[in-house]
Amino acid sequence: MEKDQKQYTSISKQALRRLPYYLNYLKRLRESGVDKVSSTMIAKEMSLNDVQVRKDLAAVSKIGGKPRKGFDIEELIMCIESYLGYNNINDAILVGAGHLGRALLSYTGFEDYGLRIVAAFDIDENVVNTNIGGKIVFPMDKLSDICNRLNIHIGIITVPASAAQSVCDLMVESGIIAIWNFAPVHLSVNENVIVHNENIAESLALLSSQLAARLNQKKNNLCIKENPV
Amino acid sequence: MEKDQKQYTSISKQALRRLPYYLNYLKRLRESGVDKVSSTMIAKEMSLNDVQVRKDLAAVSKIGGKPRKGFDIEELIMCIESYLGYNNINDAILVGAGHLGRALLSYTGFEDYGLRIVAAFDIDENVVNTNIGGKIVFPMDKLSDICNRLNIHIGIITVPASAAQSVCDLMVESGIIAIWNFAPVHLSVNENVIVHNENIAESLALLSSQLAARLNQKKNNLCIKENPV
Repeated sequence: MEKDQKQYTSISKQALRRLPYYLNYLKRLRESGVDKVSSTMIAKEMSLNDVQVRKDLAAVSKIGGKPRKGFDIEELIMCIESYLGYNNINDAILVGAGHLGRALLSYTGFEDYGLRIVAAFDIDENVVNTNIGGKIVFPMDKLSDICNRLNIHIGIITVPASAAQSVCDLMVESGIIAIWNFAPVHLSVNENVIVHNENIAESLALLSSQLAARLNQKKNNLCIKENPV
Repeated sequence: MEKDQKQYTSISKQALRRLPYYLNYLKRLRESGVDKVSSTMIAKEMSLNDVQVRKDLAAVSKIGGKPRKGFDIEELIMCIESYLGYNNINDAILVGAGHLGRALLSYTGFEDYGLRIVAAFDIDENVVNTNIGGKIVFPMDKLSDICNRLNIHIGIITVPASAAQSVCDLMVESGIIAIWNFAPVHLSVNENVIVHNENIAESLALLSSQLAARLNQKKNNLCIKENPV
């Protein structure tokens, strides 16, 4: 594969083989809520020596580990994914297979933009393992695993407002960095995460106000108001 | 009622009583696709004399009937509704009780803006007469009657693209002048009708492109690209 050949020119075949293992370990750390890691920790986990690990990481990341603090896990994951060509910005997962979730899962317009909702998640056992619009609904505890394995970075939230923040937190721990939020609630996220809030009601409110303005203008031009006296 | 008293000052009680009958007749004409009417036609229909009708209409509308062409039905309806205080910009009807329609019917956020979806319509006999989110789903042939009786001016289209234009036409004939269109199709309407197209896919496409831009910027800053040689 031409891509591999290119990579061999910038990094040893052995180092290239180690990158996916680093990635897997780093993602497991992220899931457990850790945000920094030292080359020593990685070396210990993978039974390699510290120097080797630092050399491998230096081949993919410009940012060295900071003394004591170590490497930023998010940054390392991003750089290794980038190096390996894992740049998935077309696939999304959806959490909350209620009416709105089902509507989005069944909506075919996304393909026109090269975007796909690849899986859905819900807590309702009656919905889990069903198929909606060709997508399987998985239980929530499969979310991290699926997002990490498929390198998914886009998450869609269609759960009730009360559940939205916890779903958001789970998504971020699972590598989601762009969230399309339909729940009528403000989500608090770190600065690395993009949140796009979809307020359906506002669209209708806008239409209603345009209608009011249009009607008033025409009435003033054409109609005689009540009680002209 | 104070309002009535006010109106009596500007129009006779008898004329005020006739207005709803004019309105009813004009709406029936609109339903049948007519857009102009002469005072003679109205007088004949209501067994009144021509002069009386012109006097009544002149009390609510600044626009007199044009010789031969007659009165613009839309304008007369708007002026009589305005005069009688029928200014409903808060209620909407929805056509298409599929996944998206059900999502909107079940959505509670509209009330925050003083807006209500008061009824839904569908062709599917399995859905007709069911209750979704507290709203009854009526058969399509009830649409004109309900919109006219409740003076509803806002319509929401959540039908497949292939059916959207015919639904749009039926809405306009029934007095809808503001349409919120979720069908991925361009609707052709006359200049009096406001159409707000909701393209769900575009929102996700925007989020995806923001994500791509963010990732590329961070990678350039932090990561060593493949094949740096």
